[in-house]
Amino acid sequence: MIKEAIYHRPKNNFAYAYDANTLHIILQTKKNDMDSVSLVFGDPYDWKNEQWQTDTREMLKSGSTSLHDYWFVEIKPEYHRMRYGFRCSDATETCFVTEGGIFGSLPSEIANYFCFPYLNPIDVFHAPSWVKDTVWYQIFPERFGNGDPALDSENTLPWGSKEPTPTNFFGGDFQGVIDHLDYLVELGISGVYFTPIFKAHSNHKYDTIDYMEIDPQFGDKETFRRLVDECHKRGIRIMLDAVFNHSGFYFPPFQDVLNKQEKSEYKDWFHLGGFPVEPEEEKLNYDTFGFVPSMPKLNTENTQVKEYLLKVARYWVEEFDIDGWRLDVANEVDHTFWREFRQTVKSVKPDAYILGEIWHDSMPWLQGDQFDAVMNYPFTNGTIDFFAKKELSASDFANSITNVLHMYPANVNEAAFNLLDSHDTPRLLTLAGGELERVKLLYLFQLSFVGTPCIYYGDEIGMAGGHDPGCRACMEWDDQKQDTKLFQYVQMLINLRKNNPAFGNGSKFRFIYSDDEQNCIAYEKFNSEHSLIFIINNSESTKLLSSKQLFSTNYEQITEWMIADGSTLNKKMKANLSQIELQRYEFRIFELKQGQ
Amino acid sequence: MIKEAIYHRPKNNFAYAYDANTLHIILQTKKNDMDSVSLVFGDPYDWKNEQWQTDTREMLKSGSTSLHDYWFVEIKPEYHRMRYGFRCSDATETCFVTEGGIFGSLPSEIANYFCFPYLNPIDVFHAPSWVKDTVWYQIFPERFGNGDPALDSENTLPWGSKEPTPTNFFGGDFQGVIDHLDYLVELGISGVYFTPIFKAHSNHKYDTIDYMEIDPQFGDKETFRRLVDECHKRGIRIMLDAVFNHSGFYFPPFQDVLNKQEKSEYKDWFHLGGFPVEPEEEKLNYDTFGFVPSMPKLNTENTQVKEYLLKVARYWVEEFDIDGWRLDVANEVDHTFWREFRQTVKSVKPDAYILGEIWHDSMPWLQGDQFDAVMNYPFTNGTIDFFAKKELSASDFANSITNVLHMYPANVNEAAFNLLDSHDTPRLLTLAGGELERVKLLYLFQLSFVGTPCIYYGDEIGMAGGHDPGCRACMEWDDQKQDTKLFQYVQMLINLRKNNPAFGNGSKFRFIYSDDEQNCIAYEKFNSEHSLIFIINNSESTKLLSSKQLFSTNYEQITEWMIADGSTLNKKMKANLSQIELQRYEFRIFELKQGQ
Repeated sequence: MIKEAIYHRPKNNFAYAYDANTLHIILQTKKNDMDSVSLVFGDPYDWKNEQWQTDTREMLKSGSTSLHDYWFVEIKPEYHRMRYGFRCSDATETCFVTEGGIFGSLPSEIANYFCFPYLNPIDVFHAPSWVKDTVWYQIFPERFGNGDPALDSENTLPWGSKEPTPTNFFGGDFQGVIDHLDYLVELGISGVYFTPIFKAHSNHKYDTIDYMEIDPQFGDKETFRRLVDECHKRGIRIMLDAVFNHSGFYFPPFQDVLNKQEKSEYKDWFHLGGFPVEPEEEKLNYDTFGFVPSMPKLNTENTQVKEYLLKVARYWVEEFDIDGWRLDVANEVDHTFWREFRQTVKSVKPDAYILGEIWHDSMPWLQGDQFDAVMNYPFTNGTIDFFAKKELSASDFANSITNVLHMYPANVNEAAFNLLDSHDTPRLLTLAGGELERVKLLYLFQLSFVGTPCIYYGDEIGMAGGHDPGCRACMEWDDQKQDTKLFQYVQMLINLRKNNPAFGNGSKFRFIYSDDEQNCIAYEKFNSEHSLIFIINNSESTKLLSSKQLFSTNYEQITEWMIADGSTLNKKMKANLSQIELQRYEFRIFELKQGQ
Repeated sequence: MIKEAIYHRPKNNFAYAYDANTLHIILQTKKNDMDSVSLVFGDPYDWKNEQWQTDTREMLKSGSTSLHDYWFVEIKPEYHRMRYGFRCSDATETCFVTEGGIFGSLPSEIANYFCFPYLNPIDVFHAPSWVKDTVWYQIFPERFGNGDPALDSENTLPWGSKEPTPTNFFGGDFQGVIDHLDYLVELGISGVYFTPIFKAHSNHKYDTIDYMEIDPQFGDKETFRRLVDECHKRGIRIMLDAVFNHSGFYFPPFQDVLNKQEKSEYKDWFHLGGFPVEPEEEKLNYDTFGFVPSMPKLNTENTQVKEYLLKVARYWVEEFDIDGWRLDVANEVDHTFWREFRQTVKSVKPDAYILGEIWHDSMPWLQGDQFDAVMNYPFTNGTIDFFAKKELSASDFANSITNVLHMYPANVNEAAFNLLDSHDTPRLLTLAGGELERVKLLYLFQLSFVGTPCIYYGDEIGMAGGHDPGCRACMEWDDQKQDTKLFQYVQMLINLRKNNPAFGNGSKFRFIYSDDEQNCIAYEKFNSEHSLIFIINNSESTKLLSSKQLFSTNYEQITEWMIADGSTLNKKMKANLSQIELQRYEFRIFELKQGQ
């Protein structure tokens, strides 16, 4: 027994409130080290004859990484309080894991046990319920549709006439989005995430000049209001991008600092290290995003800055009824600001979605007091590295995704923003070396996974493109140039996701098979009613898998789900399925009916 | 190499901002598994020729428990941002620990590394600076001094005439405290923590009737104002006890519920599970503290309750200038409430101290947004079990205290409320089986440790007493019955603590020796200027220790600090100290002057 590898600490992802009545408890142990793990628990005040009253519940292995096993149990403590420890056994030894240490027998002193003091509903992590069932679509507004040429500046290029560069313009605008909303409805989209729309110089608009104004290139506030209304009519929610870590160079307060220097009333709006503030110096004397002189970091500890940004946060929700904020470079802004941001936004619209851009482990922002979700790059990285880049083995992929699922509480995972690419990465098809079959596997995995998936505009019709600016080309509206088969395939998956809780966000996920030699994986999506088995051949050759490795013997009936022509689903009962053949990059889906 | 035992996760106690410029980074590894550990780190945006620029810094072992080693390094990142990983080596292998996994070579992809995104000063945990230098004294007001017999009710017993019972009264009051403030000054006290003083029925006053009124038994608001003033004049700060988890039975809103049932306007102030609310039922239909019908849990999620309690929190600070709040049963109240509580209290008095009563691991409350400290029971338990109860071996004691120090950030430890006993436990002398020598060792350890120590009234003059109510006897003011030698000894230690940063809270702590056979320990308190070595014989027989085990060879000069008669300190230079003799329960203190 490797006791040194055992880890548990209350709160965060190891012990948390799943809802107002339910605790989830997880223990980490060394992989394959324990034969069984049980929770020993009780109400701290439940004593009889000076004896603390405890109960025992077996824990189940919820997943394994290359190093660790994770053991899970769900408890609904009657009085919302719990003290607990773990009984861990291998073939020769049993030990008891408590906050006070690891013991050979159950400690009698209750002070030793772990403590979940009280399940207060207000502390439960709670993302808006609609998010779980949303399929997002990310739009880079300068490149989705040019619906109102009257707004084009004179340097606007004809739509799609050139490759995108960091500085060219194609006239994308809100009317262009409105014109194509029915396209999104057809695909099955229920949320749009717009990269910034506020007044700014660049084509990407991350260099904000005025957070209270729409960039005139996109339209005016009335057009935006119409856009929101038209979306809402179609059941599509809208999320805007808030760049609060830093302003643009031409943000008037920063210009005021450059002009008036120490006399500027805005000098405390930034992190200045002395005067004169001089953006041309090689070593800057003010804080910026990265080392970019034109992106001065905003001082979000300053009361005026805070008031201004919170006014912005409130304004677009209150006046235009937007449904969410995506927060740029969210982890470089202070936690205190984000707590106030959440209070402000939720006070106006309690079910608004707050999504932070964080590429790393984000537990500190996902405790219920700050964000509802982060952009789930650990999911992205594992998935892209396996299916698109083929840089991960099957088992490393399984380890990586299992790790992502165990980094956060289950209710956090259910609202996670699962993207495969974005305006900041090469496009899917390009990442997959142009191989459409691999793009299809990526979509299958993304759209059958736990969380809320996001499709980057144009990927669904087979657009390619390298790193920024390559990935920011004009949306292809010529249906001769669109891959309509891919569109139908994605549409089909979205449809399956929406209509089958076991396929979508109403079930749990676990790997049941991964084989590095075969380069095949299988995973199960299951809830109390259904079980779906996904088997994927991620290799270039045909594979024959034994069903014994994939299915438990405890089922009565297998039905295969077959996607014909990428647009219809056929279901077919299977009998005596002993071997499963998969062509190169093929997947197969089986529905199991459990036996008694 | 046991890679499964390696643990690190940013924020909490493993990576945190110590101050506005400094990060502390800690890695856990299996005990004695690694020969060396280094931090590989850099600014995430510092690239040259497409190569991320990193630096390497050796980490030092900051302590060991029975299972783990902890490795520590302090970094001051120029631009307040850091990505990092760890290089771990044993005799045969080197591995690199990152957020993305453990690798055999340094990963080139920066996304793999751990991330401390930005050191924002407002997020730094920051307890009031005065707390670090405070020595607390806990007063149970009914039992410290009867200064105004006019306030005594007719059932008041003559001072100290009987053993304390759960229900008897001795007339302790504020005037009695004021009368003895010079005694506290003489002892060296700089903060008083009062158990509850608000209107209540019992002698302990934890059953609040009115949070806005002083219990008339103790005096009135004018007397209390005078008490605060007299304390402040003497450099003594005042902390009150807030019982916000539950009210008393006779709290008017609860009485209103009992009288008017579903018609009561206060029915949402509590957690009611139906009507009629009936405190006599065996199975209660409302939430309480423990299962005590007379302590109904307050619904701190309710706006009116929150407003009322925050008004209380503000009132006593604003109107009476108290310096801190101790929060009863703090971990059963929601985090959201405590965040608002902190904002309220700090808005009135930015350097007020907020201390939670939590007996368990308290990291979730000590992130800077809720409490400044918790009652450090893990410290209490280890210390009492070793010195008083003699239930821990020397090495288990060292493991336990090292574990306490690594549970929290260093700045949290420096403000931790280190008690040895309280109104909720037997008294020190009783815990130590009546052996004064062991009480002296307890005080030595407490008063030379990191954090802010608290002395329970009367312990310093040798009062004994078992569990509640035994520990709540009347303070002994007859100096014939006081152990004045013990008083002088404690006075001396407090004096040493105050005048020597290495002795007190201006240094780091580490064990340098623990021997189960000898039942001896040694620890070092050190800063950049001084090093003090404390050697303690916790056994009943004389011990001879070799100085080689205790001192590094790298010193020039040793001076022994000797406490004569418990009241004066003599310093004596030592040469050729090869063996150190310790009588039963003796301790010796040596000051080292480091060599070049």
